[in-house]
Amino acid sequence: MADAIDLAALVDAARSGQARAVARLLSVVEDGAAQLPEAMAALAGAGSGVPIIGITGSPGVGKSTTTNALIRVFRERGKRVGVLAVDPSSPFTGGALLGDRVRMSEHAGDEDVFIRSMASRGHLGGLAAATPQAARVLAGVGFDVVILETVGVGQSEVEVAASADTTVVLLAPGMGDGIQAAKAGILEVGDVFAVNKADRDGADATMRELRAMLTLGGLEAGQWRPPVVRTVASTGDGIDELVAELDRHQDYLRESGEGRRRRVQRAVAEVEGLVLGALRRRIDPERLQSLAARVASGDLDAFAAVDQLLD
Amino acid sequence: MADAIDLAALVDAARSGQARAVARLLSVVEDGAAQLPEAMAALAGAGSGVPIIGITGSPGVGKSTTTNALIRVFRERGKRVGVLAVDPSSPFTGGALLGDRVRMSEHAGDEDVFIRSMASRGHLGGLAAATPQAARVLAGVGFDVVILETVGVGQSEVEVAASADTTVVLLAPGMGDGIQAAKAGILEVGDVFAVNKADRDGADATMRELRAMLTLGGLEAGQWRPPVVRTVASTGDGIDELVAELDRHQDYLRESGEGRRRRVQRAVAEVEGLVLGALRRRIDPERLQSLAARVASGDLDAFAAVDQLLD
Repeated sequence: MADAIDLAALVDAARSGQARAVARLLSVVEDGAAQLPEAMAALAGAGSGVPIIGITGSPGVGKSTTTNALIRVFRERGKRVGVLAVDPSSPFTGGALLGDRVRMSEHAGDEDVFIRSMASRGHLGGLAAATPQAARVLAGVGFDVVILETVGVGQSEVEVAASADTTVVLLAPGMGDGIQAAKAGILEVGDVFAVNKADRDGADATMRELRAMLTLGGLEAGQWRPPVVRTVASTGDGIDELVAELDRHQDYLRESGEGRRRRVQRAVAEVEGLVLGALRRRIDPERLQSLAARVASGDLDAFAAVDQLLD
Repeated sequence: MADAIDLAALVDAARSGQARAVARLLSVVEDGAAQLPEAMAALAGAGSGVPIIGITGSPGVGKSTTTNALIRVFRERGKRVGVLAVDPSSPFTGGALLGDRVRMSEHAGDEDVFIRSMASRGHLGGLAAATPQAARVLAGVGFDVVILETVGVGQSEVEVAASADTTVVLLAPGMGDGIQAAKAGILEVGDVFAVNKADRDGADATMRELRAMLTLGGLEAGQWRPPVVRTVASTGDGIDELVAELDRHQDYLRESGEGRRRRVQRAVAEVEGLVLGALRRRIDPERLQSLAARVASGDLDAFAAVDQLLD
């Protein structure tokens, strides 16, 4: 079945705007199908200038509402928008369990908007490899901007957030989010910050707390100073300001060379993830299992097991 | 400096109950120091029957308060308790940034309680390898029970939660947590569920929703049926019931052979993580960097780069 895919035709169909073809290409990426190398080779070089915007933040800060609001602005500019939701708590993602599609995208009927949830398991090189590949597919088949929605809590999620060109960190008032974000290492990956739900009590305090934390880091001359904007994504308030900051950051990336540096860094993570995936598949599972059984019994320590496995 | 550590003396000191020695042993694990293999070899076989209890759930459900309440019960039984907090949002973890130690453990002065926050970065085999090793250190030097506190949101965090013998998943009323937990794959790793803050509005609804979701999975004969308890960790209400369920699950693990199966599975993850860490260090960073630069420019695709790197 998988071998029956005519990749050249699929890429052509995806480029002509057929959503089903885009979806099938992304499935090739997600499943780590045999044609994955062929697909990536077919797309190499295309869309390398397409901005990848990361949206991250704790559950409940309004990531999906903000994503919807951003899609609206980009659509008004005539841009085709691709969205990858790698957030397990996103309403875009899964949600089949309880039929929870309540907050599902308002752009579902627009054929210039493509939204895809990414399964985080099973990919060759893990999420860190699958996500840039999927983003490259969307850029390569002609989307003008790619939005990457991730929950910024876990280790791998922070890594994924960091793999965007511009990362927006969302916070909301009264969630103690500022401190939690700082601990989770999320402040370091933010290029633009938005205090969403800014019509709620405590927004001023969250703005103050966030600005104080951002100042702690210090800045060198010529370095990007992450701006903080107030948004109410559900009404659209502040979204234009947010988009203006995204544009300003894209200019900075281009002019400073930082954009190029980030893309190389992302490629390093992607290639490294794929190499480790390839190496993992060379480990003999039966031998690993029997050595692990001895480690569990306490008659072998884990490092001795590693030495035996690497022999 | 690192080479100056007399490991045998350090292990002896840790076993005699010296907290500083325990802390130094854990640093050897966390830093992936050169003596790590020697340390693990010295401890192999010791404490292999010590229960490892995982406490997981979204930020704000009361994981640290519950951990404190559990420590209290175990201490009343005369047990020595070791705690590893791998939760970036935990008040046990880090927190230095804003001097946020408000909810810090009430057991700080008790020398039979040892609490350690785990940094999730920099370890040889990642969090999945560091955590079982650190748990083994605590078990090996004489703690009678090890508690593993993790935020159950990200991919690696769910893996860590799954690496405990018994995993407690905490939820709280009115956070939409049930659905989010289901999406994050957290329901699958729960052996015991607690709806904490059960004195709040919506506790009944959360109990119902959770029970409905747990029933969806179905059960085979002889399989463990995850119980759901109500707790108010801040007052201690329901904690005895929670501990009774933990005891019952430990009995189940022993009698069914499931405990043994889990320990082997954990050793598989640990050994595999260490092998991949060892292999990663064999990748030539300069060659990776120059290939990645070509991938970023679009004149090489990632899979072609992998092939060249593996040659």
